[in-house]
Amino acid sequence: MAEALRVGIAGLGTVGASVARVLRDKAAELTRQCGRDVIVTAVSARDQKRDRGVDLSSAKWFDDPVKMAQAAEIDVFVELIGGDEGPARSSVKAALEAGRHVVTANKALLAKHGVALAEIAEKKGVLLNYEAAVAGGIPVIKTMREAMAGNSVTRVFGILNGTCNYILTRMEAEGISFDACLKDAQRLGYAEADPTFDIEGQDTAHKLSILTSLAFGTRIAANDIYMEGISNITQADIRAAGDLGYRIKLLGVAQRTESGIEQRVHPTMVPTASVIAQVHGVTNAVAIETDILGELLLSGPGAGGNATASAVIGDIADIAKSRPGFQHGPVFGRPAKELKPYKKAQMRSHAGGYFIRLTVHDRIGVFAAIAKRMADNDISLESIVQHAVNGEAAAQKTVILVTHETTEAAVRKAVDGITKDGHLTDKPQVIRIERAG
Amino acid sequence: MAEALRVGIAGLGTVGASVARVLRDKAAELTRQCGRDVIVTAVSARDQKRDRGVDLSSAKWFDDPVKMAQAAEIDVFVELIGGDEGPARSSVKAALEAGRHVVTANKALLAKHGVALAEIAEKKGVLLNYEAAVAGGIPVIKTMREAMAGNSVTRVFGILNGTCNYILTRMEAEGISFDACLKDAQRLGYAEADPTFDIEGQDTAHKLSILTSLAFGTRIAANDIYMEGISNITQADIRAAGDLGYRIKLLGVAQRTESGIEQRVHPTMVPTASVIAQVHGVTNAVAIETDILGELLLSGPGAGGNATASAVIGDIADIAKSRPGFQHGPVFGRPAKELKPYKKAQMRSHAGGYFIRLTVHDRIGVFAAIAKRMADNDISLESIVQHAVNGEAAAQKTVILVTHETTEAAVRKAVDGITKDGHLTDKPQVIRIERAG
Repeated sequence: MAEALRVGIAGLGTVGASVARVLRDKAAELTRQCGRDVIVTAVSARDQKRDRGVDLSSAKWFDDPVKMAQAAEIDVFVELIGGDEGPARSSVKAALEAGRHVVTANKALLAKHGVALAEIAEKKGVLLNYEAAVAGGIPVIKTMREAMAGNSVTRVFGILNGTCNYILTRMEAEGISFDACLKDAQRLGYAEADPTFDIEGQDTAHKLSILTSLAFGTRIAANDIYMEGISNITQADIRAAGDLGYRIKLLGVAQRTESGIEQRVHPTMVPTASVIAQVHGVTNAVAIETDILGELLLSGPGAGGNATASAVIGDIADIAKSRPGFQHGPVFGRPAKELKPYKKAQMRSHAGGYFIRLTVHDRIGVFAAIAKRMADNDISLESIVQHAVNGEAAAQKTVILVTHETTEAAVRKAVDGITKDGHLTDKPQVIRIERAG
Repeated sequence: MAEALRVGIAGLGTVGASVARVLRDKAAELTRQCGRDVIVTAVSARDQKRDRGVDLSSAKWFDDPVKMAQAAEIDVFVELIGGDEGPARSSVKAALEAGRHVVTANKALLAKHGVALAEIAEKKGVLLNYEAAVAGGIPVIKTMREAMAGNSVTRVFGILNGTCNYILTRMEAEGISFDACLKDAQRLGYAEADPTFDIEGQDTAHKLSILTSLAFGTRIAANDIYMEGISNITQADIRAAGDLGYRIKLLGVAQRTESGIEQRVHPTMVPTASVIAQVHGVTNAVAIETDILGELLLSGPGAGGNATASAVIGDIADIAKSRPGFQHGPVFGRPAKELKPYKKAQMRSHAGGYFIRLTVHDRIGVFAAIAKRMADNDISLESIVQHAVNGEAAAQKTVILVTHETTEAAVRKAVDGITKDGHLTDKPQVIRIERAG
């Protein structure tokens, strides 16, 4: 049998401890699967004394993860520190430069420095694996990087943030407000004390930027993503969506268009009968559309210590199965040096259906004025629903429009026009509709 | 750059022609992804003259696939001949023995001879890849063999036959009978002239047997699978399922139980709100439950020239990324010689919920007799629905029972008892209920 693969784990939070535990508990099985032993020989974290529920005494302790990254004791450096700068970045860089394979769950680091790190890995002939960085336990990186060889991706989209999907699921199931839901999610540990990063779409954008690169062979462009969060989604939207046969999900979508690549994160209406509409709670899902394979959908746990650890272990096992001299496929599917610049499609040229909810004064001529603004912008309507606003009787009405395919520019112009007409009593709500099988 | 990978394709039907076309059309992209050229250097089929829509003149023609398998012109032998004996088996065996990597889409061959072939591949240090053999374009083999390293699978189940799912989907959507649906499926090319192999579950069983081996590290046991087809599913079942919040799917299920491993293929009720219930038409889906990752679901095209070709290309690309001396993981996840014997769980000990539809004489005491038979077998009922049989007014009634978890043995005994009581006017219908997320 080949020599044991020696693993160093930097960061011993929930995921790190879980990785160490699985490598110990499943040692015999992993040896059978990989053809060699996989052992934890080094660990690094902030507090050596903390009890992490797993005996790490046989591993060498490092206060400094950079030192561990360069140490002779390891073949693989597992980065579970987090953050896009500081020790995470410097230790991953040091490990790659020292010729160590790297496994990381750090989406923020990859979104910001992924291409530069991939160039080092490819130059050094080592692996940089990051299955856990996107959609937790779902093997979407392996699928896009390996299984879809030869496929040209046309669109990739998904539910990539468990916190948002948990909130939207409960809002629909229980009829409670966004704020009430968020508070409960925080109480239960599904949302951070400062939830902005999740709620406003930044976390989804980081993950999406990695999928975009894998899908289209472009350099990662995480700062060039159109982003809307879920904090302005109301019960009125969720109910109206349900009545129209849709469900609201926060999606990250990357799509090739004539003018470039769209990367967008926003609340989205998907058909209730679609597979992705049944993805509830903290579960994640990714759909990938290609020219050869067609549409593939993967769903599963997007977070949690064990699910994330499972992806990390899969990455480590792939390294264990490789042997010195083996050259794996490139980090982002194509050699990092050959990744093309990201050519952004303008959001205003986005084509699709739209849901528009307007709260208007209940007076003669309002409806005609709205219809005229739509027609003036060549927007054809699939359905129009008008009803009294609950509890406010005759003074206001809600008008809900669903458009056929049109453009973002046309919708913005029409809604601006309606707003200027002075008929609205509240901010207009616009939610994009996404085709989904 | 490394030397080109030389591919020989045996069998040039829809899939084979599609593989050749993609390898040509995506040559530059595949080279970028694999770090070397991938070229078709040899082909073999029955009729050299047939136009297959792709120029194969640069590849050497072999009338005999076994000769091609042993030829010096190829590094990879792609078997798309089909059949579990004859040229498919002899050429795959010859290729492995000659030290060629093999890619096959042949589920029947693997179900019957997979372990023996894996032993040769592992002895020779070559790859035997078979992503296309199960669930077409869905990367379930890669997921189970690589991504789930270290996970212990508790259950794997899926919609593995597109023909059956197409028929069940149309029966529900259009309210038409099984026979009418099958005829239409045959007319449209979704079902064979002799549909038995699909309809009665044999095709699903072949695929399931491969997943079982990957899941539990056991030797493939395709002939030891409990099997019921969909030909006796009626509109009454589909409507009753819908009323109760279920949808009927033909599932293959492999599950670890206390007494062994259950392998079963049968019509199954899954909750309408589950993800797998939304998998319509010819689409396939596989759900995998493990101790670490949790539940993962993959859905996508289960058949068709292009989708199958996509899986074959992925397998070829994995080989192209490997280099001489590289030792990949074992064919069925664990070394073939270490696969454990399959210990079958008896079907009568299967535990789960049951749907039971009885057509009975409408007379006093029938209901009490049914209830007594259930109680005598310790079966607790979740719901009971009784209504008149359409158009036959007072003479007959339908009784639908949904049980809480019980055993197959108890249900069979109870239903046998009810049959003996003489109250039934038609064959009883029993459909198992499967938990699904």
